[in-house]
Amino acid sequence: MNFEGKDILSTENMTKEEILEILRVSAKMEELCKTRHVSDLLADKVVAVLFLEPSTRTRLSFETAVKRLGAKAITVADAKTSSTAKGETLADTALTVEGYVDCIVVRQPQIGGAKVMADAVKIPVINGGDGAGQHPTQALLDLYTILKERGTLEGLKVAMAGDLKYGRTVHSLTYALAPFTPKEYIFCAPDALQMPEHIVADMKKKGIPCKVTASVEEALQADVLYMTRIQKERFSDVAEYEKLKGSFILSRQLVEKGKKGITIMHPLPRVDEITTDVDELPNAAYFRQAHNGVFVRMALLALVMGRA
Amino acid sequence: MNFEGKDILSTENMTKEEILEILRVSAKMEELCKTRHVSDLLADKVVAVLFLEPSTRTRLSFETAVKRLGAKAITVADAKTSSTAKGETLADTALTVEGYVDCIVVRQPQIGGAKVMADAVKIPVINGGDGAGQHPTQALLDLYTILKERGTLEGLKVAMAGDLKYGRTVHSLTYALAPFTPKEYIFCAPDALQMPEHIVADMKKKGIPCKVTASVEEALQADVLYMTRIQKERFSDVAEYEKLKGSFILSRQLVEKGKKGITIMHPLPRVDEITTDVDELPNAAYFRQAHNGVFVRMALLALVMGRA
Amino acid sequence: MNFEGKDILSTENMTKEEILEILRVSAKMEELCKTRHVSDLLADKVVAVLFLEPSTRTRLSFETAVKRLGAKAITVADAKTSSTAKGETLADTALTVEGYVDCIVVRQPQIGGAKVMADAVKIPVINGGDGAGQHPTQALLDLYTILKERGTLEGLKVAMAGDLKYGRTVHSLTYALAPFTPKEYIFCAPDALQMPEHIVADMKKKGIPCKVTASVEEALQADVLYMTRIQKERFSDVAEYEKLKGSFILSRQLVEKGKKGITIMHPLPRVDEITTDVDELPNAAYFRQAHNGVFVRMALLALVMGRA
Repeated sequence: MNFEGKDILSTENMTKEEILEILRVSAKMEELCKTRHVSDLLADKVVAVLFLEPSTRTRLSFETAVKRLGAKAITVADAKTSSTAKGETLADTALTVEGYVDCIVVRQPQIGGAKVMADAVKIPVINGGDGAGQHPTQALLDLYTILKERGTLEGLKVAMAGDLKYGRTVHSLTYALAPFTPKEYIFCAPDALQMPEHIVADMKKKGIPCKVTASVEEALQADVLYMTRIQKERFSDVAEYEKLKGSFILSRQLVEKGKKGITIMHPLPRVDEITTDVDELPNAAYFRQAHNGVFVRMALLALVMGRA
Repeated sequence: MNFEGKDILSTENMTKEEILEILRVSAKMEELCKTRHVSDLLADKVVAVLFLEPSTRTRLSFETAVKRLGAKAITVADAKTSSTAKGETLADTALTVEGYVDCIVVRQPQIGGAKVMADAVKIPVINGGDGAGQHPTQALLDLYTILKERGTLEGLKVAMAGDLKYGRTVHSLTYALAPFTPKEYIFCAPDALQMPEHIVADMKKKGIPCKVTASVEEALQADVLYMTRIQKERFSDVAEYEKLKGSFILSRQLVEKGKKGITIMHPLPRVDEITTDVDELPNAAYFRQAHNGVFVRMALLALVMGRA
Repeated sequence: MNFEGKDILSTENMTKEEILEILRVSAKMEELCKTRHVSDLLADKVVAVLFLEPSTRTRLSFETAVKRLGAKAITVADAKTSSTAKGETLADTALTVEGYVDCIVVRQPQIGGAKVMADAVKIPVINGGDGAGQHPTQALLDLYTILKERGTLEGLKVAMAGDLKYGRTVHSLTYALAPFTPKEYIFCAPDALQMPEHIVADMKKKGIPCKVTASVEEALQADVLYMTRIQKERFSDVAEYEKLKGSFILSRQLVEKGKKGITIMHPLPRVDEITTDVDELPNAAYFRQAHNGVFVRMALLALVMGRA
């Protein structure tokens, strides 16, 4: 398996072996960070971190990865100051920046935008999120977190709760975990925000039992509960939102009634869907999950630049 | 005295010994910069420079300090692109970033916000200004400048002029200098913008003679004159502002009528409260004062990361 | 010839020898980048990259140059967060930043602004574009590109097309190439956007034949065709714009009817004035031109800091 020069655009077309290789290198990077906080693995590389749509958390995670590998970053943190704002195409932006750097990390709002850039240039492009499209580094850090927290990716009962209709993160995770033969998926959401039927059907076709429910108590019987935020703006009826919101808040009391040792994940930022008294429980994996993103992104940078 | 792992939130709870230790290390850093412009003292460290409220001058000073120590910076320069803007709490921001970096520098508009972040995480947090609250690195660079310009912090006659009512900088300096037994404080401001009475009372309780005046000529009889800007927006009556403004402009002519060798300071940016013909006088310490900020911030970074 | 400590404010007052020296060092930098992607030539330097007016392309090019030389950058990417926005003068900004860094790169909208800053400080200042004024690094990278693409700067027939009235880039190029005895200048634009008469007169005075035309076909008979964008906002009559626009679009078909081996340049970003099917032609030099900017900027940074 050779990732050198490859683009990382989506997890959907990755084989199980490719995913496992990325997670193996991520663990190597986590180990590297313990012994050498800043390595010189990519000391001769410059990486463009182009956030044409703002996302501080993901940007800082990528920049940390770049810097802990000893590489240099040139950064766009804000869409409004970019050439794209002057009417330049994404392909032209990529072709220009190709002359500056060894790898492009890009986040922008257009579905397929990262692929357009990857197709235009010879250097590797890593998709840092393309609107409602793909966000492969999030999916991979979710898998890496599950692997670390549970010791395995195989045969798990995994629940997802919150906004499953619009949540790109949970869609990607559902597909990315599928090759690891989950024991069951529990999709826990209000009716209006349930997992799209074609995804549920896809999973059933793969032989994965799926439970569709609105009860967080049921979701808490899984090995892993992946929480997401229910956004007010998804509801036309505010009263409906207010009514539902309360049923999808995870408190310490609820967690303690759930399966012993259940792993609680969340892509962050959280607003109030997990109360802060959950944070101190060993089950609360969401900040560790955010930290794991650095190792996974280090792995991808090292892999596509042929240094892993 | 060991600063390793400590937060720098305020100068108010610092002992005289702690302040002197920081100034001693600042001098060491200034020396280091002369021999090695960029050192490798913190070459294995990554620092988050989170300016959730913009302040270019302070941000660039901190980033210079980070880089002259050989450390890497990940930066937020603008509030609008931050996760906080999405409703995340400061504690959650800190808990996330804790997994990326070895130290957090933060500026944000909420009084006590830096402390909230420091309480949430195990890594050191340096307060780069929390609204109307504390701005300890400014107070320390002011002390360092006085020490360098006058040769001592002890027994000085120190005047402060301009907006003493709302000026966070002059409040902090008043308290920070107090342990060094000033010979006298001269508070020079229009009545509406005078030093708050409780601060004057506090100083008198400590046995420091305080003169309250509206005459810049009197202020110019001190060893050090610390100028600040009178902001138009503090006045409900524009005519009142226009009338007063002129009396608080420092010209070369005025300085030359003042005490020989008086040190003129200003936290910058200045607008027109010091005329540019003052700049060439040896008394004008304000640009040296800005430059000193780099050494003081280097000292704090090195101290809290256990490398001073 | 010694550039150490000098400012780079304009190409207009540069001698032919100075320009050739900069291009010679640019070639050296291009060679350096091939053998050592990131060198340590300026490893002990910190450079301020102050973009008080946004220009992502130029900023990223400068930052790449800084980082490929091993120097550190402190960056302002956005005017709104800068001290200048608080009413500080450019001279004061320069005097403050002088205490942080070894060199200032500045882009800002005020004609002569870079010179104001250069006059205020002792460290070298490089003008990254001052509004409708000068943009010397663009002119130098244009010359470097012509030299590389054509093997010489001497005796060329050079056409410029598009908006020649307001185009700062083509004005600078016209003057910068003049000492290299061009065989002919072809100025190709709609009447309303033609090259200012005083510039044409200046060139004629230097003995350079000038053809003024509105025909792109004629322009395509040159050795080099420098395209620029015609901006809608230059026209009071939108219908007039729509009518003209079409005549100044360069397609593959047009290029293939032009002089064999003609070099096509463009300062970028392009919108639709060159169709993308031109990109694959060996004549299309515009992305190479953008990439050359890094080497030219590396050369200037190394020269003014005495390390070339």
